Amino acid sequence: MRLERRKNYKPHFFWDSDVAKWMEGAAYVLSKEDRPDIEEKLEWLIDQIEKNQGDDGYFNIYFTVIEPENRFSNRDCHELYCAGHLMEAAVAYYEGCGKDRFLRLMEKYADYIYRVFVEEKSAAFETPGHEEIEIALIRMYRATGRKKYLDLCGHFLNRRGVADNNEEHILKYPRYAQSHLPVREHTEAFGHSVRAAYLYSGMADYAAETGDEAMLNACRAVFDDITKKKMYVTGGIGSTNVGEAFTVPYDLPNGQAYTETCASIGMMFFANRRLEADPVRSSKYADIVELEMYNGAMSGLSLDGISFFYENPLEVYCRDRERHTAMAGEERFPIPCRVMMFWCSCCPPNITRTFSSIEKYFYAYDETENAVYVNQFGSSVYEDGDVKVEQVTDYPHNGKVKITSTVPVYVRVPGWCRKFSADGAYKMVNGYARFEAGEVNVEFEIKPELVKSNVNVVRNIGKAALRRGPVIYCIEGVDHECDINTLAYDRAALKDAKIVPDESIGLDVIELDGARLVDSDPDALYAPLEECYTAAKIRAIPYHAFANRGITDMLVFVSYR
Amino acid sequence: MRLERRKNYKPHFFWDSDVAKWMEGAAYVLSKEDRPDIEEKLEWLIDQIEKNQGDDGYFNIYFTVIEPENRFSNRDCHELYCAGHLMEAAVAYYEGCGKDRFLRLMEKYADYIYRVFVEEKSAAFETPGHEEIEIALIRMYRATGRKKYLDLCGHFLNRRGVADNNEEHILKYPRYAQSHLPVREHTEAFGHSVRAAYLYSGMADYAAETGDEAMLNACRAVFDDITKKKMYVTGGIGSTNVGEAFTVPYDLPNGQAYTETCASIGMMFFANRRLEADPVRSSKYADIVELEMYNGAMSGLSLDGISFFYENPLEVYCRDRERHTAMAGEERFPIPCRVMMFWCSCCPPNITRTFSSIEKYFYAYDETENAVYVNQFGSSVYEDGDVKVEQVTDYPHNGKVKITSTVPVYVRVPGWCRKFSADGAYKMVNGYARFEAGEVNVEFEIKPELVKSNVNVVRNIGKAALRRGPVIYCIEGVDHECDINTLAYDRAALKDAKIVPDESIGLDVIELDGARLVDSDPDALYAPLEECYTAAKIRAIPYHAFANRGITDMLVFVSYR
Repeated sequence: MRLERRKNYKPHFFWDSDVAKWMEGAAYVLSKEDRPDIEEKLEWLIDQIEKNQGDDGYFNIYFTVIEPENRFSNRDCHELYCAGHLMEAAVAYYEGCGKDRFLRLMEKYADYIYRVFVEEKSAAFETPGHEEIEIALIRMYRATGRKKYLDLCGHFLNRRGVADNNEEHILKYPRYAQSHLPVREHTEAFGHSVRAAYLYSGMADYAAETGDEAMLNACRAVFDDITKKKMYVTGGIGSTNVGEAFTVPYDLPNGQAYTETCASIGMMFFANRRLEADPVRSSKYADIVELEMYNGAMSGLSLDGISFFYENPLEVYCRDRERHTAMAGEERFPIPCRVMMFWCSCCPPNITRTFSSIEKYFYAYDETENAVYVNQFGSSVYEDGDVKVEQVTDYPHNGKVKITSTVPVYVRVPGWCRKFSADGAYKMVNGYARFEAGEVNVEFEIKPELVKSNVNVVRNIGKAALRRGPVIYCIEGVDHECDINTLAYDRAALKDAKIVPDESIGLDVIELDGARLVDSDPDALYAPLEECYTAAKIRAIPYHAFANRGITDMLVFVSYR
Repeated sequence: MRLERRKNYKPHFFWDSDVAKWMEGAAYVLSKEDRPDIEEKLEWLIDQIEKNQGDDGYFNIYFTVIEPENRFSNRDCHELYCAGHLMEAAVAYYEGCGKDRFLRLMEKYADYIYRVFVEEKSAAFETPGHEEIEIALIRMYRATGRKKYLDLCGHFLNRRGVADNNEEHILKYPRYAQSHLPVREHTEAFGHSVRAAYLYSGMADYAAETGDEAMLNACRAVFDDITKKKMYVTGGIGSTNVGEAFTVPYDLPNGQAYTETCASIGMMFFANRRLEADPVRSSKYADIVELEMYNGAMSGLSLDGISFFYENPLEVYCRDRERHTAMAGEERFPIPCRVMMFWCSCCPPNITRTFSSIEKYFYAYDETENAVYVNQFGSSVYEDGDVKVEQVTDYPHNGKVKITSTVPVYVRVPGWCRKFSADGAYKMVNGYARFEAGEVNVEFEIKPELVKSNVNVVRNIGKAALRRGPVIYCIEGVDHECDINTLAYDRAALKDAKIVPDESIGLDVIELDGARLVDSDPDALYAPLEECYTAAKIRAIPYHAFANRGITDMLVFVSYR
């Protein structure tokens, strides 16, 4: 299935942001590789921006070309969101490649925004409808040292929930755009999940720069609210398509999960910033980054790298869809396979920029102690002056990691890990094993394990997800001859599970003995209760690799015995 | 919650049918009781019909008053459906009370319909959009002996799926109104479930009168398709609100069940007619009548007798509704409590006419053998000339039935019954125990039992419904302190279940020891699988009595251990 571009189509007012995310990704690639083809495209785009930017600094193709009279008149038209993405791209190009032309253009734009929103207060609204510029302004501040950008970020954060909180939004609730309360009073995650994650990321950045304790506490509270009540086992967030939003605690339907790819990415941002912003570095933040990296965010991309999910359901049941073609009904389901582009194509370039800068999440330098935090695992080298840390590992295929460091290292012991060993002395600090400088071999025991949900997630009662290390597994119809809903994991057989390569997806999968529920009288619709199982082989594949072999049923949460 | 009548409201084009169903119910009451108040109202209504009927015989208040130019121009405007209900009421009044004025008016109307549809073919369509008149015409034929009405019924049946099968219906599919195939070729139940049940009832009647084997076979096939693949454990039919329709086999969602009260009543009609039409009387038809009577149809009525369900869900989970007030979403759920009237109030008077003539379903006389079939149980007397059968019983509170008969009796052994005994000799014939004339005491062992669904009903895997005799039970939030989704029936404890009176609903309920799933770490959203149960008392109430104590969660299918 390939979505086609519609005819006679007026472009999205936020397509600048998609181009900007591609530019940011391109900058990351260029910072690591010599790619003249990409550089040429990126420079050409910067030329266009330079040519089309207003003398006052304003730049937005949609509002310049289509609706010039409506500049900064509609809070929900994403101008500040687009501006933020352009600024992030400019900073990435400057920091990665030392090229500052784009950054200068964006400084001019940021200065203009400062004038309009802080000095003149001439816009029709005070705060961005879709957050993003907060993150970007911190990056601009860090790249340029100009405090004005930090102040502008603070201005937007401080006015949020103070101004613009009574408007009749298209989705009616100020909390859709997190505008229902001053940001320091937030304790629960509400509304559009990407907006929320971006806002909280910006707040964490701002708190890190300013030491704003109230803002940090709000970040702590919403982080816990999300990870303890509103997050899928894959890291996905946003339980409903209506408003692409968070709903109520423990409401995590599998088949109609919204769990936008961008929201998982936003959650990576937020978790990583929480890690960086919090004086107490706790491994729980890097755990969430890892969860998103291997599951909820990575599932957005097809194995061939050219198709994408916008939504990432945890269940595909094709018969549910037939149910609604049986009559003329239109119950809404996520698409069951990835496509090359969407009407709103925010997710594909977000994956590009995130996975092309994945190294950001691996190490963190702690200057107070002259130590390095090893947050993520993968063969890699961290080097900054005299400080050098090197990892050699096949993680997550196995849990062995060899680390060589010139300074003390804090090695994250993943939250999923139940057995950790090392050939050197260490002490545990907030979920990290602290080793002195030198070489150490650590091992996290990685084996298949079943994971249950909190009982409040009532739809998952009687079901469990299979996890191996950081990777969540699912089962797909294409690998089984029966309805996969009738399959059950066998707890007793888990210890004999086999890890085997699967050519059809080019990845290791888990083969295990399970059971299949059958009817002693298949003709009866109802019958006295009996449980009749036959043996069944179950093949579980990494969740992120689902839907790469045609449209087929899929389950993350599976019955068990 | 009480629905209010809307202002500036144009009446439904099918309100004649609701009045007619009330009239039919009134006639049944008058046939058994001296109620001058009801008789006065009924006669007044007949006066109005007489005064407003056209000289040609046409009668339809909507099309006479509001759209006189559109008579018989729109297949989906229910004129023939309304006519059918008026005819049924007229026959009921004539047969029950000997009054023939109404019947004569309806004969005139039926003659007019015959002229328009058979002789002149002057209507804009050939067959009823909503079936019902087929049933009515058979009753008219049986009451008057005029074969013209049987022929008109046959005409409508024979043209169905031949004419009117290509129209672009409001719900797009000809099968919505069972017009996709000639009726003798139907093997699966499709489309609007009330229409379907009424059609199949009319077909069974027609086959009984004519011996039309092909039509009888179609009835057999759709009956099996429904009862083996498309019926809820309560007898409810129609799995989606979209088109109020059947969907695909085994698609039986509990919380969003449509299961219209009228559809359960229609299924009672169909099952009873199948029983009467089939040369081989099988107890499976009367089993379905019983199932509807105690469950799917009876749940339509509140315990105080003044409020009604249109839809009869098998699950109410209040948090699902909160989920959609969290944002501005509007996922559709059945109402969680009964109301006094609906915008489309077809169900309330359908309950009235059905339960006021419930005796129809109890006995059937077999003239070839001069025997009586005892299809349903309840203290009652069947008397027709020399033939007299008397039952004394507390059924379904217990399974003891004393039967005294002047002729041989066939006593249905219910399909749910696993242990049957009698103090007289009998032989089993198609699910009935045949006894010679005289007195016999039979006993059906009635005890609480768990019932599972076919594995193809994947949503019910790991869950079971509690049944006691013909009565299906549910559990309600109001009786339990925890989320009822965390409760589990305990198979081992079932034998110690207690039957106790419950004052809050005035019925016996079942108290049993069960278990409640808890988290060892209630703070964790996900955790390694463990099953941690605490003891819990479970109170199960008859399903038909649910939602009589305010808005609360309800489950028919409950987890079990």
